[in-house]
Amino acid sequence: MTAAAVELPDVDAVRRRVTTVLDRFLEAKARTAAELDLPAEVPQCLSDFLASGGKRLRPLLCVTGWQAANATGDLAAVLRVAASLEMFHAFCLIHDDVMDDSDIRRGVPTVHRRLAQQHRDGRSGSAADRAGASLAILIGDLALAWSDELLHTAGLTHRQLGAVYPLIDVMRSEVMYGQYLDVTGTGHSTPGVERALKTARYKTAKYTIERPLHIGAALAGADDTLLAALSRFALPLGEAFQLRDDLLGVFGTPATTGKPVLDDLREGRRTILLALAAQRADIAQQHVLDGLVGSPDLDPDGATRVRDVLEATGARTTVEAMITARYEQALAALEDVPAVPGTMATLRRIAALALERTS
Amino acid sequence: MTAAAVELPDVDAVRRRVTTVLDRFLEAKARTAAELDLPAEVPQCLSDFLASGGKRLRPLLCVTGWQAANATGDLAAVLRVAASLEMFHAFCLIHDDVMDDSDIRRGVPTVHRRLAQQHRDGRSGSAADRAGASLAILIGDLALAWSDELLHTAGLTHRQLGAVYPLIDVMRSEVMYGQYLDVTGTGHSTPGVERALKTARYKTAKYTIERPLHIGAALAGADDTLLAALSRFALPLGEAFQLRDDLLGVFGTPATTGKPVLDDLREGRRTILLALAAQRADIAQQHVLDGLVGSPDLDPDGATRVRDVLEATGARTTVEAMITARYEQALAALEDVPAVPGTMATLRRIAALALERTS
Repeated sequence: MTAAAVELPDVDAVRRRVTTVLDRFLEAKARTAAELDLPAEVPQCLSDFLASGGKRLRPLLCVTGWQAANATGDLAAVLRVAASLEMFHAFCLIHDDVMDDSDIRRGVPTVHRRLAQQHRDGRSGSAADRAGASLAILIGDLALAWSDELLHTAGLTHRQLGAVYPLIDVMRSEVMYGQYLDVTGTGHSTPGVERALKTARYKTAKYTIERPLHIGAALAGADDTLLAALSRFALPLGEAFQLRDDLLGVFGTPATTGKPVLDDLREGRRTILLALAAQRADIAQQHVLDGLVGSPDLDPDGATRVRDVLEATGARTTVEAMITARYEQALAALEDVPAVPGTMATLRRIAALALERTS
Repeated sequence: MTAAAVELPDVDAVRRRVTTVLDRFLEAKARTAAELDLPAEVPQCLSDFLASGGKRLRPLLCVTGWQAANATGDLAAVLRVAASLEMFHAFCLIHDDVMDDSDIRRGVPTVHRRLAQQHRDGRSGSAADRAGASLAILIGDLALAWSDELLHTAGLTHRQLGAVYPLIDVMRSEVMYGQYLDVTGTGHSTPGVERALKTARYKTAKYTIERPLHIGAALAGADDTLLAALSRFALPLGEAFQLRDDLLGVFGTPATTGKPVLDDLREGRRTILLALAAQRADIAQQHVLDGLVGSPDLDPDGATRVRDVLEATGARTTVEAMITARYEQALAALEDVPAVPGTMATLRRIAALALERTS
């Protein structure tokens, strides 16, 4: 089958169709829960979470990877795999919010906060908070299990399953190791730019960009040459994506990012931005960073003082320059990807989408 | 292939061989972590957890289910599926301990406590506790992902995968819904024997006994008649298993159960035992239950007063009687299981093992 024989959906159509797959899947789960008299709030929470936003970046990259490798096979199955990546991402974010004890995600209360609220009746405040965290852990666990269900019920051929599962396994391990590095680094006094870059590579560059592209390409039988070429595009783009995220976490506008701007600083997350600032800070600046970053009581004035250090040390400017350099490196690598021509434009568009974002 | 053509391993051999599969798998994960300079403590923690105990009940039931259905196909693949159930169980227990904030499991510190200790350096006590909980959530997540990896790399035929995955999907959802019911019921003032029985059915009877048997049987191509017959044995046995667990949680000896005897009472877990006591308590007894069950400060004297109420209301005796009735019901159902004759003795042995336990 040649690329021309398949009607290729555009970015908006992919988003719409992936959302439909997720909706149908969770509607079926809601029906099962109703039949067995099990808590309806479980599928409802996931459904609301998925409806609350998200750029569907990983599904888009998955479908584009498939197109890049000549789009052979069944589009419906590819869309279901793409949807399974979005469900997997819901799992990651729900657990991430529990671990960070975040209040807000995508402009609305996080899953554990919402559930604490729903189960406040008859419980003390702290008991309700604990119940909320426990229930969110379980809903995240189900999202992981259900992402696998979406995958193995996608109707893939035996050959496709054989090509895709090793990549899925690697992706799952990589993102969890990346998160592990993030947690062990956070709030700890050993920053280090190298360590922060490694964390970004595992938890974001590979997970968000490289593996979704690989998984899609593998569905169309891509060989190692194509996968390696896609990596040369994906990894710098993914690092740029994380660097942008770090900047937004400190300098972003809550109204557009959908999350409080003080969380990253309060949490003491060892981003590349902070690692650079710590590396270059004079004694007074170091004092500001040590005293305020990672402090649960950080207030807006304190955050302004930290931002001033990030500016004065040139850390912000360096990170902006790193983003630009990686973006250009990714676009240059794209020239050498031996993919179906039409997909280049889509990959460029997704690259821009990933970086020129404000949320 | 007839049953006689396959050399059937006995209970101890199954345990040993499943443990070997898990060891080899985690050794490979440790090598990968070393090669990529990722935290060695991740596979190490899981490896230590799996080595710390566990009766390997689910793997035993899986292999026995396979034998009951005539043991056709590759034993090595069946053992790998059995090992994947044990890895899945590690995931359940690690997350369960985070949710319950338990200190001890199998006589040693729980995973989150151990990790909090390992990452105490440079952190406040509460920050270390939070890091420990986050890392244990991630290690549990990996155990879930890796249980799936063990499963889909087991070398199953396309037909076996088709027969087994729907049961795996159902098992995963059932246990998480069961836990969800447990959390929403815990610490809440709506006990109810019916609700407690339903929780036990989902989080234990189906998960621990019925589905492992079904999964094993499905690997040998069991039909619905055999699966239904196995359910009639498994569900009463599984309920009896949970009832025994409830008794051990209150009347057990920490030296043999490997966990503190006050946890269930402090947590305010709405067991069938407590639901029965609440149903029958007079005003003074109700006062004891309301005041002490679910109190984080419960001391040994308070626990003795609660135990006295559980005895005086006859709740303990009733639960003992319920265990006996269910055990007998399970054994009677076994007579009608159209399985390979030799497996009956094994199922009876596992049933006794599950119930006459002290841990």
